[in-house]
Order: sequence, then C-alpha cells, then structure tokens
Amino acid sequence: MQITREKWSKNFSEWFDWVLREGEFYDYGRYPIKGMGVWMPYGFKLRQNIIGIIRNFLDSTGHEEVLFPLLIPEDLLRRESTHIKGFEEEVFWVTKGGSTDLDVKLALRPTSEVAITTMENLWLKSYKQLPKKYYQIVSVFRYETKATRPMIRLREITTFKEAHTVHETYDDAQKQVEEAIEIYKKIFDTLTIPYVLSERPEWDRFAGALHTYAFDTIMPDGRAMQIGTVHHLGQNFSKALDFKIQKKDGSLDYPHQTSYGISDRAVASVIAIHGDDHGPVLPPSVAPIKVVVIPIPAKNEEETQQVMKYSIEICEMFNKNNITCLTDQDTEKTPGEKFYIWEIKGVPIRLEIGPRELISGTVFIKRRDNFKSYTVRKEEAINKIKELLNEIQEDLRRKAWEDLKSRIEYSNDIEKAKKILGNNSGIVEVPWCGSNECGLKIEELTNARVLGYPIEKREVNDKCVICKMNAKTVLRIAKTY
Amino acid sequence: MQITREKWSKNFSEWFDWVLREGEFYDYGRYPIKGMGVWMPYGFKLRQNIIGIIRNFLDSTGHEEVLFPLLIPEDLLRRESTHIKGFEEEVFWVTKGGSTDLDVKLALRPTSEVAITTMENLWLKSYKQLPKKYYQIVSVFRYETKATRPMIRLREITTFKEAHTVHETYDDAQKQVEEAIEIYKKIFDTLTIPYVLSERPEWDRFAGALHTYAFDTIMPDGRAMQIGTVHHLGQNFSKALDFKIQKKDGSLDYPHQTSYGISDRAVASVIAIHGDDHGPVLPPSVAPIKVVVIPIPAKNEEETQQVMKYSIEICEMFNKNNITCLTDQDTEKTPGEKFYIWEIKGVPIRLEIGPRELISGTVFIKRRDNFKSYTVRKEEAINKIKELLNEIQEDLRRKAWEDLKSRIEYSNDIEKAKKILGNNSGIVEVPWCGSNECGLKIEELTNARVLGYPIEKREVNDKCVICKMNAKTVLRIAKTY
Repeated sequence: MQITREKWSKNFSEWFDWVLREGEFYDYGRYPIKGMGVWMPYGFKLRQNIIGIIRNFLDSTGHEEVLFPLLIPEDLLRRESTHIKGFEEEVFWVTKGGSTDLDVKLALRPTSEVAITTMENLWLKSYKQLPKKYYQIVSVFRYETKATRPMIRLREITTFKEAHTVHETYDDAQKQVEEAIEIYKKIFDTLTIPYVLSERPEWDRFAGALHTYAFDTIMPDGRAMQIGTVHHLGQNFSKALDFKIQKKDGSLDYPHQTSYGISDRAVASVIAIHGDDHGPVLPPSVAPIKVVVIPIPAKNEEETQQVMKYSIEICEMFNKNNITCLTDQDTEKTPGEKFYIWEIKGVPIRLEIGPRELISGTVFIKRRDNFKSYTVRKEEAINKIKELLNEIQEDLRRKAWEDLKSRIEYSNDIEKAKKILGNNSGIVEVPWCGSNECGLKIEELTNARVLGYPIEKREVNDKCVICKMNAKTVLRIAKTY
Repeated sequence: MQITREKWSKNFSEWFDWVLREGEFYDYGRYPIKGMGVWMPYGFKLRQNIIGIIRNFLDSTGHEEVLFPLLIPEDLLRRESTHIKGFEEEVFWVTKGGSTDLDVKLALRPTSEVAITTMENLWLKSYKQLPKKYYQIVSVFRYETKATRPMIRLREITTFKEAHTVHETYDDAQKQVEEAIEIYKKIFDTLTIPYVLSERPEWDRFAGALHTYAFDTIMPDGRAMQIGTVHHLGQNFSKALDFKIQKKDGSLDYPHQTSYGISDRAVASVIAIHGDDHGPVLPPSVAPIKVVVIPIPAKNEEETQQVMKYSIEICEMFNKNNITCLTDQDTEKTPGEKFYIWEIKGVPIRLEIGPRELISGTVFIKRRDNFKSYTVRKEEAINKIKELLNEIQEDLRRKAWEDLKSRIEYSNDIEKAKKILGNNSGIVEVPWCGSNECGLKIEELTNARVLGYPIEKREVNDKCVICKMNAKTVLRIAKTY
C-alpha cells in the first residue's frame, strides 16, 4: 500500500482535527467554552499511558507525587513580582461563591510555584531534608487570547505535569536542572518524540526563572512546538515567600529551586509526528491497543463464525501475553470500514484473519507504519508480534529523528533564513554574537521566534548575522505554535 | 501491647487532624484558602491505591474513563432547573479572564451531569450504542458555608469519581442503578469500609434525580457519613438538554440516565474506621507500604551494620515478591521513635530486626492491628507475611462490620431515639408510615438527619413513631457529617 503524507504535511491543522475527532481521541470545538476539549475514552487511555511513562521516570528518580489545590489567592500569586507580571493577563479569576462576592480573588492555577513554595516553607526546615522533589499532574488554566488549538494551545491544559524541587545551593539546583533534562530526554525517547534542546534567551524565560531550558519538536507543518521546559528558579521564589532552611554550616538561608513541566502537547506530538494520510501511528510504548484483529467473513455463515472464534482465540492469546489486543466483532461493518477506523486510531499492528488463515492455522499481520505484511503460523505469532512491536517502536523513533534533523538548516544570511522559514521548513540556526539586541533584531527581521541557543558549546567560525561581530554560538529561529 | 481507642472515639476530630498531619497524609488548615487541603506524598499514594481499586471495578464492568473540562457555562448549568436550585448557593464562579470581564460566568463544576449530557447528545444517536457508561475522576467544588473538615467537608473535593450512564428505558436505568450498587458494595468491601445502604427520602434526593440511593458508614464519633450515592435521573437531564436517541422501535425519545459518585470520603473512612490511639491501621489492599522493617541497633557498630544489611536483604526479598516493603534506615532516630512514626502511618506489618534475628536467621513480625507478634525463619517469612496480610484484611473488615452493626439500634419511641442520638451512638431505626410529613417531623424532633429507608422490603410490626399508623418500613436517623 502506498504511504502518502500529503494531507498530513500540507494541511496539518485539518489533518489533526480530523484524527482527533474520527479517531475518537479528543472532542474539540464543540464543548461550549472556547479552548476547552473533552478527552474521549480512547484518547484518555493514550493519555494515561503517557502519564504512566512520565510517572515511572519521575518516581524512579526520587520524585514524590502530591496534589495541591486548584485555586491560588490573588495576594499569594502577587508575591513574586516578575511571576505575576508574566501571567497577569492570562489568569482566570474566581470572584464569587454562590451569590457572595469573595473577599480575595482566587486564581485558577496557571502554574504552582507560589502554592507549592508556600507549603514547602512549612514542611522543609533543614538541608538534611534536601534535595526534595515534588510533582503533580493537574489542570492549569490560561486565558489565551491567541487562537486556541486542540491539545496545543488551550485555556484548560488538562495534563500539566509540573515538578518542583528544593536545594541547598545554586549548584545543587543546577545539577537538578541537568537531571531533569536527562529525565525528559528519556521520556521523549520512550514516546518516540524527537526534540531540539535549547536555552531560551533572556527575553523569553519563564516568568521568575534565572534560566529556562526548553525542548522543542517540529510539527508536520514545519512549525516548532515547545514540549517541555526546565527552569532554574534560583532564590526568586524562596525570597519572595520568605522560605528559609538551615544550611550545613548552621546558617539560615533561602534555598534554591527548580521547576519543570510537560503538558498535553506530549500527547499531541505522539499523535502528530508519525502520521500519514491514513491517520496517526501510535508508538507501541503507549498505544492503548497494540494489535487489532479484523475477522474476514467467509462465504457461508458457519465458516464466518469459525473465523470469528479463531480470531477471538488468537486475540486472547495475545492478551494473556500482555499484548493488548482487541477483536473487532462488529458484524455490520465491512473489513474495509474497519481498516479505516483502526488506522485512524493508529493501532500499530493489524491482523486480518479469514478462511485461509483459519484453515492453515496462520495469522496475516500488517504493520500500520509501513503497511508491510507477514504470514506466520499461529504458534509463532506471539514472538513475531513482539519482534515487530520492537521494530515499529525503533523505526518510528529513528525516522522521526531523521525527519527532525533534516528540518534544521544553518544560514548566515538573514534574508535566506527568512525565506526558509517562510516555507515552513523547520528550524534555522544563524550565527549570533550573543547580544539581546541582535537576538531581538533577528526575530523582528525574520518575523519568527527565537527558540534559543544550544546548551553545549558550539564552535561557529562565522560572523553574527546582524552585527557581523564574531559569533559565539548559533541562535535557533522558527515559526512556532 | 494494650490497644486503646480513647482518643479515637472520644476526640475523633482531634485524632483525625493529628493522624493526617503527623502521618503525613494530608496537610489541612494551613493552605491559605479555607476548605482546601494538600495531598502529601504518603497520602497521595494511599489515594492512588484507592483510585486504582475504583478504576478496576469500573473498567471491568464496561465503564469508560473520560475527562471533561472543569468549567461549565452558567447558561448550561441553569438548563435543569431543580439541579441549579440545589447547587446555586454552592457554586464558585469565574467571572474574569485577565482583566477582562467574561460575557458568561463560568462555574467550577459542582458535578458534571449537564456537561456530560451535552456531549452525549453529540456522541450518542441510537439505542445500539447503549448502555453507555462513562466516568471521570476529578476535582469538584462547593462553596461550603458550613464548617469544613479535612477530606470530609471540603470546598475542593479532589477525588470525585463520578459515573454517568445512558439507557434506552427507565428499567434499563434501574438495572444500572442495581449494578452500580453491587459495584459500590465490592469497592467498599475491598476497602474494608462497612456501610448502610438506604434510599434517601424525597426531600433529600440529589438535585435533579428521581431516586437517590446512598451508602453511609459510621465514623468513630458515632456520626453517619455519606460515602457513596447512586442516582436514577430518569429523563430529567436528557429532556432539559433536548438529548434524544433513536429507540429500537425507530422512534426518537429522551434516554434515561443514572449517575453515581464516590469521593475523598472513601479515603477518610479507610483512615478513620480501623484506628486506635496509635493511629490508623490501613487495610493491606490499599496500604502504600505493607511491611516496614525497623533495624534494631546492636552493641557495636559492626554488628549494627550487619543488622542493617540483613534488614535490607529481607526487605528486598519482600519487594521482589510484590509485597511493598521499606527499611527505615534513619540512623538518628531510635527504634521507639520509628515505631511511633510507622504506627501513625498505619503500615499493617512491622518487622523488628536486631542481632538476635540476624544470628538466628529469623524475623520478628508485629501486626499493627492487634500488636500480636510472631518469630519465623527467614525462609518462611514470605508465606507468613502473605498469610498475615490476608488475615489483617479480613479481620479489619469483620471487626468494622461488627462495630457498625452494634451501632444500629431500633426504637419505637421518639424520645428514646433522640437520647440515643444525643450519645452519638450511631444510627437509630424508627418505625415509619412512609409519609414525608412524619419523616420531616422525625428529623425535627430528634434534631438529627434522616438517612432514608432500606431498599429491600422490611417487615415492621409496629406503629409509625409519629402518627401511630401502621409502619411500612423503618426510617434511619443519625447525626451526620
């Protein structure tokens, strides 16, 4: 079968809406509040599997899950002044309880630094308790005035994993930043999402952070999308909330903090990145159903029933071996209609089982990613499927990385950079002297957004694309979500 | 060791606050918004285990998990008039986004009937899709004006499992009510929470329901607490939202719905019900840590280290056998201090491992519930612990049921009933003619709350405690949370 990526790349926005709706992942645009969608059962399971992976990586590195209230009083949110400035125009406010006006406005959490630091101030007294790493997975709210998009730009972000850590020293917090980056790399690798890691420029840091490191991926339409951020908060929040701990030397001081987040966009990326014109291809690591069995009707009813029985038997065999399998037993749909449905749900492997397979005791296997097919004996099916699931997982990751890398170009000519970005072809790296002035000028001239610069040292034997001084590194620019 | 239940029964409220704080389950009263608490890591794990049990029972009976937006527009919430009347004074309203006044006020969901029915109206068209059973586990909000209590009466209920089902006929919905009741019985049995099941009287139904069935348990102070409700909604919401489906006979009609909920109170009950003056006793089915190992220091450092090594080895053996175990390796606390800590965390089994156990290759086991102790050889430890965990689980359930049953009294004398309730001794059943008038009079005269009447037929050869007509059933009354 021919694999095309026309709709997927040329009309990604329509493709994505179509997949979310027809694949029954997420109902968007019909709930009567702008920017808020509904996770349908199939999408919810995908989301749960992704959350499961995030939880495993965090739990196994000493992070402890907690759950804080949704609401933050206005006076508390205002304690860190840069922070509130960054969020002020995006906060939803609760002002009434029943018919009573509240004395203090309550914010729907846009993020939880101040809420969590408030309680850390009560819980943590000594360096002996550090490092401390909390996280929660919650809804956060942003009163977005830009155009909203399902899973990508929402007013209710329903899957915000936010980690918050506390350390004795600046360097300890920096080490935590590095650990967080390593954890995120593993999470995105497991999710088969390729990424570019950059330090965000000074003018685009998280409100209240000393440093912001960000993971961006490239979506099918060539736009970059931020999928994870890691912030070194220094003592900004501990000072604002007067949170001190006893240090090793006996003195009292403000601890250093970090925070890092991953959102619904992780789910959006998993659905989008490996897609084709048939729909998404879900990586086996998170696919809610790994194998779907489509029984192919025979010429007579009796044989059709035997095929169904054989199909169910095969499927049970997979489930017993922890390979989540479902047999589509609908008798009103044709096999072709079922192929369409399960392709748009992105199930990685399909089995087609008809009279031929029944008689020969075989199964006919089709991979969703490249539509290659295999026929194996029933007894060999478990091993073959396990092998194919591993292959699919690796192939998806490898191809997505190749695709991402092919979309990063270097240019020392600002006009050429602008032209590349105009073609929606991903990320352009331009040589940069390191000054904010030149950085902002680059954004202005390309009408694009600066993602930042590599965190590792980058040798650039070139001149800054703006001021023509010696370049210290490259600045990455892209059209973004 | 002597087991006392003085603090637990006489000053339950203080006992509960003490356990939540010292056991590090839930930080309450210190977050700067009334009625909103913080789930700390240990409490969060307990909550997750309880949610896991709820999910298993729902998933295995064809319920599908979804996630709806937190906010409900005012006009939508007003569509079912009885419903909004019931909740109107308890709703938190979002009225501003940034500095902009919103055109339509948005409610923080108090419950989700109207939100979910709105989308069901788009998703469900035919009887062939029915029955449909959705559920979500979310925060709901009530602007409580009564005194709030941790986990029991909150302004943010963070663990609201709400199921919503759709059926072709009234009878199908009634069957679903029965299924829901059976599921809840299994959930509460697994959680070792005893209950009384009643149909709530007409004047205390869920706002918008035709029938409300409720599970109440009795807390240590003798007050009844509602821990689960099941509602037959009839066509009230489908009519209000103009939600029709095609029936088997081809006609279009409003489907019948049910909804049922369990909240944070399930966690509160698990912590409260089996407690004693040392703290709670968590049932093994949900305890985050099933076995804690306390190494007992020896006279010299070398032997102490060997004890520690042996302790860790034992603990790893349990973990490998899926018995969650933790060794308390803190070298600054005495064994006695550790006993105190892990008792207040309710860990069902403690091992004390010292030089004697090291030399003899044994483990010393102590049950948290009755403080009985056992010494077994290391090789027998796994089996012994498994056996004890089962015994503890069964003993907790059995004793809690005995305790509950001993707190239900029958009285055909309203003055005596009032006196019993004044002593906080649980639930009183009084003979009742079935009229609302007499029911309300009973509430008034006893200064207590009517829980309702048994759902099964109850033979009562007695006269109504108010009107002296022949009693049709009993009415249950209690001081309640």
